[in-house]
Amino acid sequence: ADVKKIAVIAGDGIGPEVVAEAEKVLKRTEEVFGYRFETEHALFGGIAIDEKGTPLPEETLTVCKSADAVLLGAVGGPKWDNNSKELRPETGLLGIRKALGLFSNLRPAVVFDCLKDASTLKPEVLEGTDLMVVRELTGGIYFGEKFRRESAQGEEAVDTCAYNVTEVERIVRQAFEIAQGRRKKLASVDKANVLETSRLWREVVNRVAPDYPDVELEHVLVDNCAMQLLRRPSSFDVIVTENMFGDILSDEAAMLTGSIGMLASASLGEGSFGLYEPVHGSAPDIAGQGLANPIATILSLALMFRTTFGYTEGADAIEAAVSDVLNAGHRTSDIAVDKSTAISTTEMGDLIVAAI
Amino acid sequence: ADVKKIAVIAGDGIGPEVVAEAEKVLKRTEEVFGYRFETEHALFGGIAIDEKGTPLPEETLTVCKSADAVLLGAVGGPKWDNNSKELRPETGLLGIRKALGLFSNLRPAVVFDCLKDASTLKPEVLEGTDLMVVRELTGGIYFGEKFRRESAQGEEAVDTCAYNVTEVERIVRQAFEIAQGRRKKLASVDKANVLETSRLWREVVNRVAPDYPDVELEHVLVDNCAMQLLRRPSSFDVIVTENMFGDILSDEAAMLTGSIGMLASASLGEGSFGLYEPVHGSAPDIAGQGLANPIATILSLALMFRTTFGYTEGADAIEAAVSDVLNAGHRTSDIAVDKSTAISTTEMGDLIVAAI
Ligand SMILES: CC(C)[C@H](C(=O)O)[C@@H](O)C(=O)O
Ligand SMILES: CC(C)[C@H](C(=O)O)[C@@H](O)C(=O)O
Repeated sequence: ADVKKIAVIAGDGIGPEVVAEAEKVLKRTEEVFGYRFETEHALFGGIAIDEKGTPLPEETLTVCKSADAVLLGAVGGPKWDNNSKELRPETGLLGIRKALGLFSNLRPAVVFDCLKDASTLKPEVLEGTDLMVVRELTGGIYFGEKFRRESAQGEEAVDTCAYNVTEVERIVRQAFEIAQGRRKKLASVDKANVLETSRLWREVVNRVAPDYPDVELEHVLVDNCAMQLLRRPSSFDVIVTENMFGDILSDEAAMLTGSIGMLASASLGEGSFGLYEPVHGSAPDIAGQGLANPIATILSLALMFRTTFGYTEGADAIEAAVSDVLNAGHRTSDIAVDKSTAISTTEMGDLIVAAI
Repeated sequence: ADVKKIAVIAGDGIGPEVVAEAEKVLKRTEEVFGYRFETEHALFGGIAIDEKGTPLPEETLTVCKSADAVLLGAVGGPKWDNNSKELRPETGLLGIRKALGLFSNLRPAVVFDCLKDASTLKPEVLEGTDLMVVRELTGGIYFGEKFRRESAQGEEAVDTCAYNVTEVERIVRQAFEIAQGRRKKLASVDKANVLETSRLWREVVNRVAPDYPDVELEHVLVDNCAMQLLRRPSSFDVIVTENMFGDILSDEAAMLTGSIGMLASASLGEGSFGLYEPVHGSAPDIAGQGLANPIATILSLALMFRTTFGYTEGADAIEAAVSDVLNAGHRTSDIAVDKSTAISTTEMGDLIVAAI
């Protein structure tokens, strides 16, 4: 097989621990399926601020750009929270998304059987919930012009939210295509009764919709969507929305599954390149103690196999191994009902490796 | 007693039905407590578009401005959804908020005992949930400059989000004061890791916080708040946030209580003037059938008594009457477990009137 190059960014907090387990899984798939991977580690986030004086060093970008895919652990922590904007991990995150052209963020929110009870929602409401939020990731108010100015009413801050037709069309078409591969339902979320960007968004959605006649489309206002996710989560299939709304709704959707510690995500651009990371954060409070659950990161690797490399067999094997290990009753402490029987990060990784 | 003038806006859908019941309650409090009210009806929303060619006729504004408070039913419906911007009910809503200087929107989200089971959340998670979202209502991206322009990537739409110190400070101080009258906890919600307006917001909050030393303050990022509302709803007391985030979070909070059909809201400006309305919408699908639940509107009246008029006795009496009627087992169809025993809108209104 040809060699696939993966840039590995461990990051901060529990990042290094969970990424290490995913790397073991990576090796295992080389043995079992004959894949060949070359990994290169790069500094990013808080650790890069500490060691290089910037959250996104030029070398890191170079490593990512020369790779076929990026595996990211997690970034951030209280240590850097009061830094100036340029020296904050989040700034690196926004920077890497823009620099790598990752305009689309896919966040599947599914309910893991063994975690059904972890949700604060009633099990009967959650039943069958399996949705995917497709979030626009390089436009909108995140990247618009920002400034301060004096006004008659004191200092004023301004953020600008802009979207052009090209930006909207590429993410919307991708969402339609994803829906075609799933249950063929698409909810486009906007605030068209107030925002001009939302009105443009809706126009584009309505213009391209006829190209996907097999997909059932609904327009949902963002406030209503925040409610309907609670009311009828299982009725959603694919949700597509702009950057800021996607940030809020994808977190709401992930949390309501009760499985947030197990969810993978992908950030994609044009072509097959992608950055894959767990939905959970860097959890600095439990870092370095072997308590972290590596499953979301391992499932992010499976998503990489499937989406960037087309390695369906390997992806299936990883996902099946995770299921087997969970079905056999093994739990890290975050998902263990009886904490005294919880296994460590490395034990979980080893079990999954052995199950492949 | 001096005469209090109330502008009554029935609006669209079930608006006229629920407002009629609140007016009966109003009359009853005149008899029981000797209050004196003068009501004046005004056209607004869809019906105003139909009859006057604009959602917010000049006369309606005049009526509101000459009143001590406004009682609003609900506006909007599919009939006007495809109208151009100027001829949409929402445009009237934004216009009336701005014209009356209603910069603060209070949305209490409480769980009604008889409706505990209506929530999709587990009862043990919901236990003790009683929070208030204080939403900034006349600034931010709702009212910033909006336009289209040509770009190299096709047509582009732009929305501008701006906040100045004065706008932030008045709503934040109000939220601190409200917290002082409740459980003394304030969560200020922003996206300070990305938005300049949020950074200004947080600066102002931190600057005024020492004036309220008895209030426990936390800063919560908006995406995290969307999650924590699901995770630990009962831990919130007062949540203060900007217009767009408040739109989304107040709807999420209302829905998770399961009691959304029963929640009242207030929009306030400087002084005691306020506009009061149920949180639920115009529900055009059940309009005119006597199926609507008038309780949220009646409780909005109680909120008006308490907040604008300082009529504590009357407010207490209305709220107690609602409780009594519910405790006696009476239900409109939206909240009835056995629909065959449901009573009508007017029956519910009459029972509450009789209980005062
Ligand atoms: C850290 C922050 C800038 C980031 C975002 O808002 O995009 C995070 O919340 C996310 O969703 O990946
Ligand atoms: C109808 C719409 C303009 C309005 C808003 O977004 O403010 C509504 O959702 C609300 O919350 O009152």
